[in-house]
Amino acid sequence: MLVYVAQLNPKIGDLRLNTDKIINAIDRARIEKADIVLFPEAAICGYPPEDLLLYDNFVNKIEDELQRVIEASKDLFIVIGTIRKNNKKTGKPLSNSAAVIFDKKLLGYKDKTLLPTYDVFIEKRYFQPGLEQKVFEYKGKKIGVLICEDVWAHGDNTISKYEIDPVLEMEKLKPDLLLNLSASPYCFEKKDVRKQIFSKVAKTLKCPQIMCNQVGANDQLVFDGHSMYFDKEGQLITIAKGFVEDHMLIDLEKPMPTFTYIEEPIKDLYEALVLGVKDYFRKLNLSKACIGLSGGIDSALVLCIAQDALGPHNVLALNMPSRYSSLSSLEDSHLLADTLRIELLDIPIDHMYQQYLDLLSPIFAGKSFDTAEENLQARIRGMILMAVSNKLGHIVLSTGNKSEMAMGYVTLYGDMCGGLGVLNDVSKSLVYKLSKWVNRKKEIIPNKIIKKAPSAELKADQKDQDTLPKYEIVDQVIDGYVEDHLSIEEIVKKYNLELETVKELVERIHLAEYKRRQGPPGIRVSKKAFSKGRFLPIVQGWIKD
Amino acid sequence: MLVYVAQLNPKIGDLRLNTDKIINAIDRARIEKADIVLFPEAAICGYPPEDLLLYDNFVNKIEDELQRVIEASKDLFIVIGTIRKNNKKTGKPLSNSAAVIFDKKLLGYKDKTLLPTYDVFIEKRYFQPGLEQKVFEYKGKKIGVLICEDVWAHGDNTISKYEIDPVLEMEKLKPDLLLNLSASPYCFEKKDVRKQIFSKVAKTLKCPQIMCNQVGANDQLVFDGHSMYFDKEGQLITIAKGFVEDHMLIDLEKPMPTFTYIEEPIKDLYEALVLGVKDYFRKLNLSKACIGLSGGIDSALVLCIAQDALGPHNVLALNMPSRYSSLSSLEDSHLLADTLRIELLDIPIDHMYQQYLDLLSPIFAGKSFDTAEENLQARIRGMILMAVSNKLGHIVLSTGNKSEMAMGYVTLYGDMCGGLGVLNDVSKSLVYKLSKWVNRKKEIIPNKIIKKAPSAELKADQKDQDTLPKYEIVDQVIDGYVEDHLSIEEIVKKYNLELETVKELVERIHLAEYKRRQGPPGIRVSKKAFSKGRFLPIVQGWIKD
Repeated sequence: MLVYVAQLNPKIGDLRLNTDKIINAIDRARIEKADIVLFPEAAICGYPPEDLLLYDNFVNKIEDELQRVIEASKDLFIVIGTIRKNNKKTGKPLSNSAAVIFDKKLLGYKDKTLLPTYDVFIEKRYFQPGLEQKVFEYKGKKIGVLICEDVWAHGDNTISKYEIDPVLEMEKLKPDLLLNLSASPYCFEKKDVRKQIFSKVAKTLKCPQIMCNQVGANDQLVFDGHSMYFDKEGQLITIAKGFVEDHMLIDLEKPMPTFTYIEEPIKDLYEALVLGVKDYFRKLNLSKACIGLSGGIDSALVLCIAQDALGPHNVLALNMPSRYSSLSSLEDSHLLADTLRIELLDIPIDHMYQQYLDLLSPIFAGKSFDTAEENLQARIRGMILMAVSNKLGHIVLSTGNKSEMAMGYVTLYGDMCGGLGVLNDVSKSLVYKLSKWVNRKKEIIPNKIIKKAPSAELKADQKDQDTLPKYEIVDQVIDGYVEDHLSIEEIVKKYNLELETVKELVERIHLAEYKRRQGPPGIRVSKKAFSKGRFLPIVQGWIKD
Repeated sequence: MLVYVAQLNPKIGDLRLNTDKIINAIDRARIEKADIVLFPEAAICGYPPEDLLLYDNFVNKIEDELQRVIEASKDLFIVIGTIRKNNKKTGKPLSNSAAVIFDKKLLGYKDKTLLPTYDVFIEKRYFQPGLEQKVFEYKGKKIGVLICEDVWAHGDNTISKYEIDPVLEMEKLKPDLLLNLSASPYCFEKKDVRKQIFSKVAKTLKCPQIMCNQVGANDQLVFDGHSMYFDKEGQLITIAKGFVEDHMLIDLEKPMPTFTYIEEPIKDLYEALVLGVKDYFRKLNLSKACIGLSGGIDSALVLCIAQDALGPHNVLALNMPSRYSSLSSLEDSHLLADTLRIELLDIPIDHMYQQYLDLLSPIFAGKSFDTAEENLQARIRGMILMAVSNKLGHIVLSTGNKSEMAMGYVTLYGDMCGGLGVLNDVSKSLVYKLSKWVNRKKEIIPNKIIKKAPSAELKADQKDQDTLPKYEIVDQVIDGYVEDHLSIEEIVKKYNLELETVKELVERIHLAEYKRRQGPPGIRVSKKAFSKGRFLPIVQGWIKD
């Protein structure tokens, strides 16, 4: 039996386009003489459709498009993720379902049982759970169908403790093959966890398992693909490409050599960021970006990512020095732009800065230099970038990293300007690792940029570490507090840090909440991003001075 | 039997402060010789605590503070909203509970059954539902306890169709009195719905019902208080004050005259906005605001709201004319500021605007005047406001209304700058009604401001209606599309509009999604705000040109 796994990149809500792609994949599967075609979760609308689901006609149209899939299914057994209305009068009105189709007939639905409602997931907002597990007979084989999260209660370290484990109920049905339709977003090193869980599921069920994952970036989420095939011993046999559309043709009868898959987490992270930028632009029918270069490592890395995502001719860099910018920053920016073959404009802002100081002198008079003056410079740069954007159509990519966003070391309406915050969810520590990865073959990002001490260059001789502990410590506190929800005391213990240091950093994280709330959408690549899947009040009295 | 209803205003997460207030209320209740003291839902932590609930030590501390309440309960029967860990190994780890206490002993818990997970509510992210309904015996009476949403399945028009109606299960227990602990946020005209539902509940149970609601603004949500007492016939007997802390002392044996409550929805709306501003500042330990006046109705209304919320001496207004500002706008702003006794600074921006045009001339050369030039003016104003904010500590209040936010008729990083978007969720139609309400006794907002045609004054002779239909139509489409989730065709039919007009307006709503995502937090006063409780993708293909 031949299974065709269609790892597709849908556009949220573009039902016609997505279904055309689905039908193309079916046609290709037929040419390849496949018996079964497997698609990702919610393949017709793309995942996550969010509140488009609250529009009745949106769901009606999904059901219409499913009809087109059914009509295209001649001779094939197709399992595809869709959304359907459940006809009960109570409970949530929709199900997140797999439609099982054979030879132009709908055989039935399997409704998702476990509805993730944590982190970035809000499925209980929309869906009623399906409590029944099912196998579908085809060519004498019992084919079990589960949707994404349905297998995640079976892991050793489950994120949320479910009351039901659908895998154990599936076991009673003795499937010969398990198909899993997924829309499992990327986060750093998640593939490892995924492999462990899916391997365990195959072992429990003592049958092969094929998982088809969505690929592509949708707003802040990046889906990495990496669809997988496990044999009944739980060995990973094949894995599809990451971060691109791909397909696998799996012959269940033909033994395939097991292989060792070498994880390259930093490469994955880089590719996730590139895809995050690429799909944001492509799906919005945009092509051009502009980036303010500071001479620092963050904007340098963003320039590399943008070049890979959009091509050098679609990227415009701006150098906007003030009186506090160092000459070396200017030189380093030019060197980088030359290497990447990216156009770089110099627009000095010092005259404009002085104009503001003059205009505001009645208000500023007698008061000492503080963040007001620093922010002015960052905001002039933001204004210039936005003017270029408005006039020429380039979307601004902002360059603040997660550590800076955590600490509030970014200027609202200044360097936070942008359509997309490329590094919003990338810590300073990972920025260094990514930059070294970019330079793995040759020096693309000048080593001088990588080695210099972090500085915003908004006043004389400024360094980030004048007012912050080392970023290594900052990042430990972010890991502990934001990603793992540890208390201050637990962080002190885990990382062997000073209580006062941790306390102050946690306070800063809360104090900067108001800034982040107005930041550009980021590309979520960690297990807990600030921008998506984290709900914290701005006004709160739990953490305070 | 005397019931003391403590309608308190908690600060999210300030467990010590909130509990001190709770204990004060208990002491006052004792002086008043009350038998029972009733508090709102989640009274110890405040509602909604959001992801603070993911911190184990946060919940531990709530449990500690509950002990203090228990110790303070001598001789009293107390029902108070709290969060507790459920001790099951599966399911969500927490319950949203009412603790029932008598004379320094915890009698038990009632766990919330219906966990709203729609609109602004995300309770299934945190809580496991309690499936059991309970009555507690006190002085020979059976006292039923339900928490907020638990009664909302009993309405005629329930928002979400629950599978269980706890009121019907409560009916079987034949309570003599029903206590409801609520944290029910205000939205326009919601009190009417609340009264209908609670009245029906009392009638079904044939017993009196007392509802204690939280009051106060927490980030974007405003809780209006308006705690209520219904007799067993479902007549509303007493209602607590709206938008302030209040208490009611209810003698269940003493017949009280029924009364007619006159709804004043525009007054309520105005008070909700004032409280939204007041609590945002107070709870952040801030006192001063600054506002850019344009000479238009929106900024005029915001100035009135800020004056009421913070006092005239705490508000600074800025007049920032460009070459496109009309003289009358300037005069009207001065007139208004004088009436409100608010300091007004004039900072003309035209010179600065020209500086930008000069600086950007290499980029702008040969291209015609467009939104790039318009946005420059709005952004210069934003920069000046933020400079004042940074230097003097005034928080910027932004003035864009919901209709403008819907259409994208606001400038990102320009007039969208601000700590709080006072009118983000107030349509232009309601801005007019509110302004008339402000002027109900005397002309505070100059009638010239109210009567002039809406204009951003960012280019010569500009009017909003040059490129938009009348705001009346815009607001109908917002009501239909955003608040009621109607399709384009349904809106055309409901409001008798042109298909092309509705289509274009709905497209605009989606196109401006990226702007709103970076807007300041608003004060949610409609049944569907853009900023909170609405999840729509920026990148989508459902609504497009």
